[in-house]
Amino acid sequence: MSRGRCVLAYSGGLDTSYCVLMLINEGWDVTAVTVDTGGFTTEELAEAKQRAESLGADYRCIDACDEVYRDFVTYIVKGNVLRGGVYPLCVAAERVQQAIVCANVAKEVGAVAVAHGSTGAGNDQVRFDAVVRTMIPDIEIIAPIRDRRISRQASTDALAAAGMPVAKKTTDYSINASLWGTTIGGKETHDPWEYPSEAVWHMTRPKEGLEALEVTLRFEKGCPVALNGEDMSGVELIRALNKLAGERGIGRGIHMGDTIIGIKGRIAFEAPAPLVLIEAHRELEKLVLTKWQGFWKQNLSTFYGNLLHEGLYFDPVMRDIEAFLDQSQVNVSGEVRVLLGLGHSHVLGVRSDKSLMALEVGRYGEDNAYWDGRDAAGFCKLFPLQASMATWRDQKNT
Amino acid sequence: MSRGRCVLAYSGGLDTSYCVLMLINEGWDVTAVTVDTGGFTTEELAEAKQRAESLGADYRCIDACDEVYRDFVTYIVKGNVLRGGVYPLCVAAERVQQAIVCANVAKEVGAVAVAHGSTGAGNDQVRFDAVVRTMIPDIEIIAPIRDRRISRQASTDALAAAGMPVAKKTTDYSINASLWGTTIGGKETHDPWEYPSEAVWHMTRPKEGLEALEVTLRFEKGCPVALNGEDMSGVELIRALNKLAGERGIGRGIHMGDTIIGIKGRIAFEAPAPLVLIEAHRELEKLVLTKWQGFWKQNLSTFYGNLLHEGLYFDPVMRDIEAFLDQSQVNVSGEVRVLLGLGHSHVLGVRSDKSLMALEVGRYGEDNAYWDGRDAAGFCKLFPLQASMATWRDQKNT
Amino acid sequence: MSRGRCVLAYSGGLDTSYCVLMLINEGWDVTAVTVDTGGFTTEELAEAKQRAESLGADYRCIDACDEVYRDFVTYIVKGNVLRGGVYPLCVAAERVQQAIVCANVAKEVGAVAVAHGSTGAGNDQVRFDAVVRTMIPDIEIIAPIRDRRISRQASTDALAAAGMPVAKKTTDYSINASLWGTTIGGKETHDPWEYPSEAVWHMTRPKEGLEALEVTLRFEKGCPVALNGEDMSGVELIRALNKLAGERGIGRGIHMGDTIIGIKGRIAFEAPAPLVLIEAHRELEKLVLTKWQGFWKQNLSTFYGNLLHEGLYFDPVMRDIEAFLDQSQVNVSGEVRVLLGLGHSHVLGVRSDKSLMALEVGRYGEDNAYWDGRDAAGFCKLFPLQASMATWRDQKNT
Amino acid sequence: MSRGRCVLAYSGGLDTSYCVLMLINEGWDVTAVTVDTGGFTTEELAEAKQRAESLGADYRCIDACDEVYRDFVTYIVKGNVLRGGVYPLCVAAERVQQAIVCANVAKEVGAVAVAHGSTGAGNDQVRFDAVVRTMIPDIEIIAPIRDRRISRQASTDALAAAGMPVAKKTTDYSINASLWGTTIGGKETHDPWEYPSEAVWHMTRPKEGLEALEVTLRFEKGCPVALNGEDMSGVELIRALNKLAGERGIGRGIHMGDTIIGIKGRIAFEAPAPLVLIEAHRELEKLVLTKWQGFWKQNLSTFYGNLLHEGLYFDPVMRDIEAFLDQSQVNVSGEVRVLLGLGHSHVLGVRSDKSLMALEVGRYGEDNAYWDGRDAAGFCKLFPLQASMATWRDQKNT
Repeated sequence: MSRGRCVLAYSGGLDTSYCVLMLINEGWDVTAVTVDTGGFTTEELAEAKQRAESLGADYRCIDACDEVYRDFVTYIVKGNVLRGGVYPLCVAAERVQQAIVCANVAKEVGAVAVAHGSTGAGNDQVRFDAVVRTMIPDIEIIAPIRDRRISRQASTDALAAAGMPVAKKTTDYSINASLWGTTIGGKETHDPWEYPSEAVWHMTRPKEGLEALEVTLRFEKGCPVALNGEDMSGVELIRALNKLAGERGIGRGIHMGDTIIGIKGRIAFEAPAPLVLIEAHRELEKLVLTKWQGFWKQNLSTFYGNLLHEGLYFDPVMRDIEAFLDQSQVNVSGEVRVLLGLGHSHVLGVRSDKSLMALEVGRYGEDNAYWDGRDAAGFCKLFPLQASMATWRDQKNT
Repeated sequence: MSRGRCVLAYSGGLDTSYCVLMLINEGWDVTAVTVDTGGFTTEELAEAKQRAESLGADYRCIDACDEVYRDFVTYIVKGNVLRGGVYPLCVAAERVQQAIVCANVAKEVGAVAVAHGSTGAGNDQVRFDAVVRTMIPDIEIIAPIRDRRISRQASTDALAAAGMPVAKKTTDYSINASLWGTTIGGKETHDPWEYPSEAVWHMTRPKEGLEALEVTLRFEKGCPVALNGEDMSGVELIRALNKLAGERGIGRGIHMGDTIIGIKGRIAFEAPAPLVLIEAHRELEKLVLTKWQGFWKQNLSTFYGNLLHEGLYFDPVMRDIEAFLDQSQVNVSGEVRVLLGLGHSHVLGVRSDKSLMALEVGRYGEDNAYWDGRDAAGFCKLFPLQASMATWRDQKNT
Repeated sequence: MSRGRCVLAYSGGLDTSYCVLMLINEGWDVTAVTVDTGGFTTEELAEAKQRAESLGADYRCIDACDEVYRDFVTYIVKGNVLRGGVYPLCVAAERVQQAIVCANVAKEVGAVAVAHGSTGAGNDQVRFDAVVRTMIPDIEIIAPIRDRRISRQASTDALAAAGMPVAKKTTDYSINASLWGTTIGGKETHDPWEYPSEAVWHMTRPKEGLEALEVTLRFEKGCPVALNGEDMSGVELIRALNKLAGERGIGRGIHMGDTIIGIKGRIAFEAPAPLVLIEAHRELEKLVLTKWQGFWKQNLSTFYGNLLHEGLYFDPVMRDIEAFLDQSQVNVSGEVRVLLGLGHSHVLGVRSDKSLMALEVGRYGEDNAYWDGRDAAGFCKLFPLQASMATWRDQKNT
Repeated sequence: MSRGRCVLAYSGGLDTSYCVLMLINEGWDVTAVTVDTGGFTTEELAEAKQRAESLGADYRCIDACDEVYRDFVTYIVKGNVLRGGVYPLCVAAERVQQAIVCANVAKEVGAVAVAHGSTGAGNDQVRFDAVVRTMIPDIEIIAPIRDRRISRQASTDALAAAGMPVAKKTTDYSINASLWGTTIGGKETHDPWEYPSEAVWHMTRPKEGLEALEVTLRFEKGCPVALNGEDMSGVELIRALNKLAGERGIGRGIHMGDTIIGIKGRIAFEAPAPLVLIEAHRELEKLVLTKWQGFWKQNLSTFYGNLLHEGLYFDPVMRDIEAFLDQSQVNVSGEVRVLLGLGHSHVLGVRSDKSLMALEVGRYGEDNAYWDGRDAAGFCKLFPLQASMATWRDQKNT
């Protein structure tokens, strides 16, 4: 007799394929859901479907690229969020959305359980559990790899025994690909002194014969809307820019950081478009935001990135920060010139109708008609007054 | 009759040479002080001395590299301070020290005035005035360029008339060189859309025939102490690294930011060693600091950089932040492997006796003996509880 | 011949009466504008009008209570802004609005100058200059007391000579009254060791025979909307609460803080309704906001208060913070029971449909059905893991 | 046969008495440890000892008041830490120290387990588990009330059956008394609309016939060192002040806040000395610290309080913040006059050799010799320049 229906977050990889097998064996009716956030090839999706169905599960593939862009990527860009100064939260952005989709499917099909393939040491378990329980408080959550401490070898063996051999590559590295970047964990990434070999990189493998390329990005209210003068959707623009930058070797990085549980994690990542977009956006902002907008945006965005990373996307403070970020972007419209060099990119220039670098008001290094030297001298006397007074006090006392 | 002695902060460039001339003409006894923070060649210093003395000033050259390193650079590194995410505060670090030295000389020679060549629009006027008044509250400050709105053309003409022609280059760009980086302002930097031509870069001009080079940096308590296994002082290490990185084209950047007065400023800069050191230090920290140390270090350091930039170095909050930073570095000891590529560098790996990435405690992505899946499941239920509750509340109410 | 029209921010007090006299004498056509933010009696307004007109000025009185409430008070309440933990920004809230009204009148009457009676040491000069120049960049600003260092004695004498004697009280203390509180400076407030005598307090003078009173306040989306079950406008509610609390001696305080220029300032203040409302609102928030909402609200609001205090109301970061605050208040609706005792008030209880203290989910101190002891034990092991690991590391190394 | 030795954190109350009984019954050798942080009477301690020993446990009572003062209270005062603006962290300060003492005893007696009486919903379980595991990573932790969901009724019944009846009062309210304040939970505190009746307060029960009393507190480097001119230790001073303020009804409060697990908790508390000391210290600081010291102290201290509350005392960021706080206090020396009224206290005045309110430099509201009106006018033009520019930009664009 069936134990009821269980929705499984299913990527088609080793761990989640094992989960299908195990859940079926234990009497669940399984709906395996692949949430496509831009990281699958058509072949991979076909294979995932075939594998799930041949194991006895219902299968659904749901495209969520637009949602990932709208609800996550736009705020990562608006906030210039780079975790540890380097990492554009490739996984967190999509994982939360994948959990949302799975919970929605669970509601729709009347599932009594949701399953995922996370281990008991990583971040994804927290994200899945948090999102699913938030959306369906009383649902059962099944995480076979975590709960039963299934090793990668055990999964491999069980699938092989069931006639589902897994390619060797999958077991050397754990790869997570999506529109907003690919992460690669395994081997060298476990030792902080080691660096991955050239073979592990895919999105950023340099294409022979290419030269540096200058591109122009246009932003409106903080969102990228055009590449080289051509309007396109955010998702299209990221895809196009991933290609142009990736084939020039741009976008590699290593991210070492704090997992939600508190241990250190280290992964390699490839994120050509994210890194170019965030840098471009950040430089444009410098032209149109005030000093204090920049200060608070940074503090709030770092924290926003932390909570997104930690699966706390539903904390209402996230909506409050988003309101701040949205308001801060009303003037972040303009164009950015970026040089896509070989192996690295940099911003050449920015321009905007909303520029605060108004030549008629003040030119850095030159005196100006709005104020004169006497005004400046008064400012120079009073602006640092309190710091001076505190020092005079200390001098008097010593 | 003399109006008394005036100490002039003197670089030997256009503006400060004009100041010597003007101060002498107006009856001051002038002590021209060049504070060498690593940006002058022997020839430049000789020429500066010769020019000052031929105009009738006393001349002193005082080396302050060690002080700049000890009091400013170490905290910029400990704080990973990059203004706007890019600029290691090349000028602010040395300018404050230069003002301190000038004030000390003023005390020593019994000067009744201190003069500097700053304009009424830039940052240096605030830094000079703030430091000098803090150290000598009742001294007169003379800033001829600011107070009388002397244009660069007028300075050039006056010096030429006095038999002191100034080389053309000086009037195209305003260059400020030091151990901790060179800034270049003028022409393209005034238009945020434009990028400087290859000719303006000096420290980072690629040397033909060089290949990528891997170097090892060793830090102790947050300070760089060895390069490629060779112990050296901070100043020596910066000089050596400036050469190795600079000749590979590493260290260029454009900084657009908020001047103290509030207008936008944009400069090009060359800072090979600073950028490499800060990135290396930041990555080492990720191995040994906790999440919350990283969070607060970033907030405090960004602010520390702001106040240093703004000439508020003497505010006692700076000492408080330094105490925080010093304490935060007790475990920041270890080695960093950096690849100095052609045009860009990146960190390959880090290692430390103080590593928190202890393989015996928890490996990212794998389950671990200290806790089991049941512990993890409990954590995953309770860690996001408040965010879930807030969402259930909202669902109930809508 | 007239020098043109000058709009004067005019309170009818000593300094601004002197300004009318001086401006008229020097050939200006003067429009004296009293912006009523709730601090004038009918008699005071009549007297102010009479005095201005008898000195030859045009006179206008403009009520701006609603604007002060809408644009300033609501955000002070939403942010629980108490400068230094005690002071509800009584003056800053109204002064900025007064400057806005004066600038609007200046535009309307085609004035070429705006005048105010601020000194060169206080905060109001910055607020007036900042607001007026922001709204009319090229207007002339006249601040006679500051620019000519007119002492209070000199003003008094000049007015007496012109047949306008000023009451003695005005010259002992400088009083600034408004809907949102009264400030009192002079004598004891200049020495931080002294406390004002009973005679200086007006709004908070206890009325004989009154007893403690319990009142109920209702908030909707963070704004007070009803007192004791009776709906009223914000301005009405503040007036009613000022009376009920003030006549019980509630709302006195001393505020010592940093002026914009950097010196320390100290004033006494009376703010019955502001203190009661802010405390009530803060306690209500604790029932409905998450921990992180509270954390960021406090950081942002403290800063918001600082910038409001400093006359930087027009910095766009203020709009960004307001967007955050507005969003944070979507659930801040409910009732607060407050005991108005004799000399002090405190909150007795709060309730809200949006409460997060849901008894069915978890009761503090008791175990709960949503999680069990095993979940809690897992949480207790993993939540502090990083702090533990860092300590183990240190133990190992020592 | 014995299961080995277990150290029990033992208060002598209902829950921990039950724990003795249960542990003994299950074969543990029990060392019951009462850590006295100032909340026990001699009678209570004698009774606790008698009860533990009659149940078969070894008993120790260890005084830790000095440690609580030195390691926790001084930083709460230096940071003016009031959780939610009201609560001086009475419980967190002592609980962490109690866990430290228990872990030290466990090491000393070679225990293989540590037990505590916390439930699975409160904060103390996290604090105990965190501290004990941090100090002894591989020790077993036993929390019978949490792990077995023992209700207060079940504990009462089991103890009665063992011949140890518990007084009724204990089961109506859960009281936690210590030097640094008493907390009271139960009945009214569970409903946020209700307020405890007069009968629940003990430390702050007004004594008939007392009048308001003015006291003088002296601080050195941020710590209280004298009361009314008499030098005393911190612990002595707190005891003396608790009496003087408590018998005037000062120090009551209700704290509603976020528990570590995320649910809302609400307790009544009595903390006469803590509230008076923190307010006095805060007002003294306003005289001697700069604006930015105040700003960062508040942000860091709020966070410090959060982590102390959450049992994360051992995170090294706490040491970093302590270093900041220590440095910030170098000038926080001086005297504070406090009026202990009936039911409320307030600060009358402060004075310090380190005062920044130097009358010779600038008097608030009056013009000053260090700067003149022209300086002030220049400052007023440039200080708000960026906010003005941003507004001009917006005006131009609309």
